[in-house]
Amino acid sequence: MINQLKERRTIRQYLDKEIDDSLLNELLETAFRAPTTGNMQVYSVVVTRQQENKERLAPAHFNQPTVTQAPVVLTFCADFNRFVKWCELNHAQPGYDNFQSFVTAAIDALLVAQQFCTAAELSGLGCCYLGTTTYNAPQIAEALHLPRLVIPITTLTVGYPAHTPAQVDRLPIEAIVHHESYRDYSPEDIQRLYAYKESLPENQQFIAENHKETLAQVFTDIRYTRENNELFSKIYLDFIVKQGFKLPE
Amino acid sequence: MINQLKERRTIRQYLDKEIDDSLLNELLETAFRAPTTGNMQVYSVVVTRQQENKERLAPAHFNQPTVTQAPVVLTFCADFNRFVKWCELNHAQPGYDNFQSFVTAAIDALLVAQQFCTAAELSGLGCCYLGTTTYNAPQIAEALHLPRLVIPITTLTVGYPAHTPAQVDRLPIEAIVHHESYRDYSPEDIQRLYAYKESLPENQQFIAENHKETLAQVFTDIRYTRENNELFSKIYLDFIVKQGFKLPE
Repeated sequence: MINQLKERRTIRQYLDKEIDDSLLNELLETAFRAPTTGNMQVYSVVVTRQQENKERLAPAHFNQPTVTQAPVVLTFCADFNRFVKWCELNHAQPGYDNFQSFVTAAIDALLVAQQFCTAAELSGLGCCYLGTTTYNAPQIAEALHLPRLVIPITTLTVGYPAHTPAQVDRLPIEAIVHHESYRDYSPEDIQRLYAYKESLPENQQFIAENHKETLAQVFTDIRYTRENNELFSKIYLDFIVKQGFKLPE
Repeated sequence: MINQLKERRTIRQYLDKEIDDSLLNELLETAFRAPTTGNMQVYSVVVTRQQENKERLAPAHFNQPTVTQAPVVLTFCADFNRFVKWCELNHAQPGYDNFQSFVTAAIDALLVAQQFCTAAELSGLGCCYLGTTTYNAPQIAEALHLPRLVIPITTLTVGYPAHTPAQVDRLPIEAIVHHESYRDYSPEDIQRLYAYKESLPENQQFIAENHKETLAQVFTDIRYTRENNELFSKIYLDFIVKQGFKLPE
C-alpha cells in the first residue's frame, strides 16, 4: 500500500492536459481531511488555472517554467481571516493576531499541502513544491489579493506527468533518526552520512558546472546564500507582521 | 486509492502492542521520500519508546494521556545543525542562522510528519498530532537534548488503534478554496459556511458544558485564548532565536 509513497518523485514537466474540476475538487476534499489544530482549518487554498494569472505569479517564483506550464497552481495559505470573522460575528473576542497563531495556521496549511500532494500522486498526477513562496510572499499576496491574517506558505504546481525523472538520493535513515535523545554528529559521522550523496555523478557534475570545490559550496555560495536568506528573512517577517500577526515585545 | 485518505481520522487511544522496529523504519524511510527544499533534508526525528522518556515529555504536552499511552512518540524537528556541520567540514560558509532558514526547515519537517502520518495510517496504525510542541518547545528540547539550530515543530503519537472514533466535521470545500484570487467573506458567507458546524450536537454540547453562548467563544475563551497565544508566541520566538536562528534587524 505504501509502495507508491516510497516511489514518489517531484514532477516539474506536465502534459498539455487539463485537470477536471471534479478530480481537483475530490483531491482538495481529500486533502482537507488532513489533521488540523482544534479542527479550526485555519488555511485557504487559491487555485490558479488562467494563463494570465499564472503569468502574474511567475515572477514571484523567479519565473520557474513549471508555474506557467502546469495546468493548475495551488497557493496554500495560513488563514486566520475567516476564523476571526466567524468569532467576531459570534460575540467572541479573537486573540489570533500573534506569532503563535501564525505558526498554528502555517502548520495547518502545510499538512494540507502534503496531503494534497499525496492524493494527487496516488491519482496519477505529478506535483512540484515552490519554496519561493516564502521569499516573495508580498508579490504573491498582491497577485492573489490576500487580506489581513492570510500569508502564503507554499505553492504546488500540479499536472499530468510529461516525464519520469530518476528518484533523487536521500540521506541514510540513521542520518535523520535519533533514538530517545538527539545524538549530535561527529565529523566522522557527517563524512560517512554524506559520502553517498557526494559520490553521485550528478552531484560531481554540479560541482564542476559551478566551478566549486565541494558540493556544500554549491549550496552556500549559489543555491541558498547568506545574502538571499537574510534578505528573504526580512521580507517574510515584515510581511507576517504587516498582515496582522504581531511579534511579541 | 485515495479513499483511505478520505476516511482517515485522528486516533488518540492505542492497543498495548509494540510497533516492530522493521515496520517503524519502513514508515520513516517512506516519510523521508517527502519533498524537501533543495534535497537538503533539514529535519530530524527523535523516536521515544522508553516509558520514562515519554513521562519526561508528557508535561510539555500538558500531560495529554496519548503521550504516555502510545508505543511510539515522534518529535519532528527543523534541523540545520547537521547541514551546517557538513558545510563547515567542506570549506563552505553556511548562512543558515536566520528566520528564513528556520522557515525552510520547519516546512521540511512538517511535510515529512504528514507523509509519516499517511504511511502509518495506510499501514493500519493510528496517529495524533500534538500542537503543544510549539508551546513548550524549550522543555521538549531539554528532554531530547536538542542542540543549536534544532527546533521541535510537531509531535506524532503512533500506535495500533484501540478505538474508531466518528469522523469529525469539516467546513464545506467552498469555505477553503478560492478561484484565481481570494474572495473575502461577507457576514452572510461566514454564517452559511459555519452553519453545519454550529448545528452539530457535539458542538452544542461543547457550548453547554463550557457555559458559553456560542461555539466561537469556546475557542476564544477556553481552548485558544489570547493570553496563552501571546505567552507561547514569546516563548517560541525567544527559543528560535536562542537556538541560533537570528531575527532580521
